[in-house]
Amino acid sequence: MSTLGPDKNDDVLRRFYGVIPAGGAGSRLWPLSRAAAPKFLHDLTGSGSTLIRATWARLEPLCAGRTLVVTGRAHAGAVRAQLPELREADLVLEPEPKDSAAAIGLAAAILYHRDPATIMGSFAADQVITPVEPFQAAVTEAVHTAAEGFIVTIGITPTHPSTGFGYIRSAGALAVPGAPHACAVAQFVEKPDEATAASYLEQGGYHWNAGMFVAPVDLLLKHLEASEPVLYAGLMEIGAAWDTPGRAEVMHRIWGSLPKTAIDYAVAEPAAAAGDVAMIPGAFGWDDVGDFAAIGRLNAAAEVSNLTVLGEGARVYSENASGIVVTDTKRVIALIGIDDVVVVDTPDALLVTTKAHAQRVKSAVEHLKASGDTDVL
Amino acid sequence: MSTLGPDKNDDVLRRFYGVIPAGGAGSRLWPLSRAAAPKFLHDLTGSGSTLIRATWARLEPLCAGRTLVVTGRAHAGAVRAQLPELREADLVLEPEPKDSAAAIGLAAAILYHRDPATIMGSFAADQVITPVEPFQAAVTEAVHTAAEGFIVTIGITPTHPSTGFGYIRSAGALAVPGAPHACAVAQFVEKPDEATAASYLEQGGYHWNAGMFVAPVDLLLKHLEASEPVLYAGLMEIGAAWDTPGRAEVMHRIWGSLPKTAIDYAVAEPAAAAGDVAMIPGAFGWDDVGDFAAIGRLNAAAEVSNLTVLGEGARVYSENASGIVVTDTKRVIALIGIDDVVVVDTPDALLVTTKAHAQRVKSAVEHLKASGDTDVL
Repeated sequence: MSTLGPDKNDDVLRRFYGVIPAGGAGSRLWPLSRAAAPKFLHDLTGSGSTLIRATWARLEPLCAGRTLVVTGRAHAGAVRAQLPELREADLVLEPEPKDSAAAIGLAAAILYHRDPATIMGSFAADQVITPVEPFQAAVTEAVHTAAEGFIVTIGITPTHPSTGFGYIRSAGALAVPGAPHACAVAQFVEKPDEATAASYLEQGGYHWNAGMFVAPVDLLLKHLEASEPVLYAGLMEIGAAWDTPGRAEVMHRIWGSLPKTAIDYAVAEPAAAAGDVAMIPGAFGWDDVGDFAAIGRLNAAAEVSNLTVLGEGARVYSENASGIVVTDTKRVIALIGIDDVVVVDTPDALLVTTKAHAQRVKSAVEHLKASGDTDVL
Repeated sequence: MSTLGPDKNDDVLRRFYGVIPAGGAGSRLWPLSRAAAPKFLHDLTGSGSTLIRATWARLEPLCAGRTLVVTGRAHAGAVRAQLPELREADLVLEPEPKDSAAAIGLAAAILYHRDPATIMGSFAADQVITPVEPFQAAVTEAVHTAAEGFIVTIGITPTHPSTGFGYIRSAGALAVPGAPHACAVAQFVEKPDEATAASYLEQGGYHWNAGMFVAPVDLLLKHLEASEPVLYAGLMEIGAAWDTPGRAEVMHRIWGSLPKTAIDYAVAEPAAAAGDVAMIPGAFGWDDVGDFAAIGRLNAAAEVSNLTVLGEGARVYSENASGIVVTDTKRVIALIGIDDVVVVDTPDALLVTTKAHAQRVKSAVEHLKASGDTDVL
């Protein structure tokens, strides 16, 4: 393994550009998270920062503001308010959701037209990572590995046999300068059942797929072109026009016609099959805040009391109660003699469930949608 | 036992006047019931009537509008709205709460000055009684018994060894014309512990004291005079002025100085010791709606679903949930995977507890009072 001189190191890192896809309603966190105020616009950890702001801050030392955000048109104002440093040319507003291949592919196409040597790193706006230093170290290794011609995923060491995430099966170590932990990826595997997940942990060599990756934009686009030529052509046309006065017209004309597919199918899996994917194991705490039980885990307050309370100016009285209260209101909330409860209090909707049932909130949202109660979604 | 002729029967019943003490915040039903909107102003059974309206309607066939209501000044408007038939002279507004001896004693004093032969019947505004026919039959028997010179309590046949009520120990049957079920009362006993309550049920001859009684006003006042002479004198002065232009001045001058005590201590117990108390057993369903668990029992909906929902236009979605939802709002409420829960949703306060802990709501209210959160009490 060779040691990099400071100049070479700097050259590679200067090619790095952050991308933050900020999408998804986070329906497992309803009624806190909803169409008009998705998960990434909330402070779910009591840190004082929304998740998107924390994501931006984590990337800041690596890309010094060279970060592009892709989000829905409805969230433009909220995202600008959260990220006042964001340049308008780096704010991509989707007229309608088109799934992750279009969102991330457009970021790649825009950055490619600015500089085809760019290495982009894609990090969802609604994940919680602590501490930040090992995250930044992993991304730095990933950038060096990407510079060698890889799409580099950052794998999360599993803490339990989760059935909620896809897994990455790694192969041998790679000898990449500046990336001592880089290894080859043999395969992406879909969310397993419980027995399979347990066997992954037993065997070792499996990491959770957190959807974080770092890649040379040209390599990403090459795989996209091969698997989704129509999508690729449309995105390249928008990318070419992006930093010109034609941006709005081209976006308006093309976006609606683009096919919907996930970046996993369009790029990650074919690239892995071609031997183009590497992995850096992430030696940091990671949570996708998938449900309200996660909010309990992520809030330090839970360690000193049995009740986690989230919400500015919350007025909660509890007696023999444990669980989580999230409030968007100034109402007095009294909890008496109830364990592991989840109470989410918003001006127009109230959820009462338990930590054990937190994953089922999504089905409630689907039911409400079906029954026409869309005013609260 | 003699049979009454229609004339004699009518004479006795014509002396009857209903009294409805409408007091108490019902803090075990917080945050639905509160200082500004106590229990008696709510429809807690899904019947379409508030408890005070239902109480009035139950008495109507017996006293044809000859009913006097004693309540707090703050509830004047709400009571007038609920009981549009109520004459202003029959609405007693307490400038401040002075406990039951003052409230009921003042009713007696007012009625005494109108006609010393009056037989009053006192029935709290916040109890649920079904069906009404046996209640009316019991009151009719009680009026006949009162006419013989008794303070007549209506005892509730215990359905379980409750520790939440006082008990009435009966002695032998009385031979009262028109009251075949009348019996003598040996003693009022305070709320017992569980073992004692169980022994009462085993022994028989014990009924719950529901606080309902029928009495000649002169007999009631005689006992009050003996046990609480200062209170008696004050109430008689107000009573004498009540139907005159001096009412407001006298009320204002005297009420604040009256001693506070319960009618049980001031009248019922000394009268029982003197052998002046009789009882009619009530052969009807009775509930004092003491907590939210009672609301579950009292609502027919609970029989067809595991979830009782109370509230006009309630928007409740439930999945594997049982218990009670009471809502004063139009918010969507989603309950997922939670059993025997009690959710009470009001614009400024939310309660989440379980049926088993429903009795402890009162202590939450006391805590909130102590902590200065009086805006929601």
